Amino acid sequence: MLSHRLNIETEMSDQDKNQRHNQRMQRKKAVVDAAVARADKDKGLILVNTGNGKGKSSAGFGVVARALGHHMNVAVIQFIKGSFSTGEEDFFRRFPDEVEYHVMGEGFTWDTQNRQRDIATAMAAWEKAESFLSNSEFDLVLLDELNIALKYDYIPLERVLTALHNKPEMQHVIITGRGAKNELIEIADTVTEMREIKHAYKAGIRAQKGVEL
Amino acid sequence: MLSHRLNIETEMSDQDKNQRHNQRMQRKKAVVDAAVARADKDKGLILVNTGNGKGKSSAGFGVVARALGHHMNVAVIQFIKGSFSTGEEDFFRRFPDEVEYHVMGEGFTWDTQNRQRDIATAMAAWEKAESFLSNSEFDLVLLDELNIALKYDYIPLERVLTALHNKPEMQHVIITGRGAKNELIEIADTVTEMREIKHAYKAGIRAQKGVEL
Repeated sequence: MLSHRLNIETEMSDQDKNQRHNQRMQRKKAVVDAAVARADKDKGLILVNTGNGKGKSSAGFGVVARALGHHMNVAVIQFIKGSFSTGEEDFFRRFPDEVEYHVMGEGFTWDTQNRQRDIATAMAAWEKAESFLSNSEFDLVLLDELNIALKYDYIPLERVLTALHNKPEMQHVIITGRGAKNELIEIADTVTEMREIKHAYKAGIRAQKGVEL
Repeated sequence: MLSHRLNIETEMSDQDKNQRHNQRMQRKKAVVDAAVARADKDKGLILVNTGNGKGKSSAGFGVVARALGHHMNVAVIQFIKGSFSTGEEDFFRRFPDEVEYHVMGEGFTWDTQNRQRDIATAMAAWEKAESFLSNSEFDLVLLDELNIALKYDYIPLERVLTALHNKPEMQHVIITGRGAKNELIEIADTVTEMREIKHAYKAGIRAQKGVEL
């Protein structure tokens, strides 16, 4: 079937190809234009990046860069700090006037082996998050790896839902981490599942500076 | 089953919960430590972010930020430029010493309606990309939306595969865009599919400054 189609394509003249392409693009443009015309509301968005693949936090930090391009004020809280230093922290701390950057004090949860201490540090970070989520001076709040803290019941889900419900209308919030709770997915505007198709790690390649670190 | 399990959890004392948690974390730590010990190779990675969901480009730009945190040199080529100005471009152009930033001249393909012109501009952008992919001074090269240019046959796949095959050993390359070609997935080290679970757009909310723009 595929090779059959390829043969047809080979036999098509360049002119036919161009014409077909243009017709297809015109139809696509009509669909896109209509969708753009329908979408006319403005709103502070709640975005959730979840799943087992790479890119959940990276995508959050990419949106931070985008927001800074518009001279917005950004707050970042990292709920799970890796035991290694991270490039994004070093980078975004260079803009203290535009980015409030907080990292929860402890390492990965399986490094601490102490649930009571994890809960205390997670709650301290969460209280910081609440102060950002009730302050309309912050245009964007990134709650990096909050889903992990919720998964381990370090922070009560109800409290997170309440803070999101009461946030400033135009404030955007990004929540990352695998295993997002259903209740969070329900109140979110945009939810993406990052699915791992392939990971270098499994081929024996360690985390690379500038990519994972 | 779920409510039954919840009942058991409610009946567990805090001490039991903590103990169980610690045991689970100890097992997890052992698994993670073993995997870390196995992964000991260094390599310039080829990452592909594909799928129909949000976050493919954002994740690419998040990695750019991470690399800049390590004072690496970065090259960015955007193969498809939206008709709107984008925050990430405004932001990363602030670092001309560390980031070479190139945007292909035209708008979205369905805006131009001219296949010959699209091919010419895509090829000009690709030649720029080849110059970065053969220059070991660039630690990270982001080829944003290259998959779209490949999908429409604007750039020959073979030429892309060859350039990736011959790139400097420690250079990292990120390729984004929906519909990644199988041959690209095969040679990539890490591939993530961004799956759309939910998108604000479909609820009538237009692209928001700082998030999508």
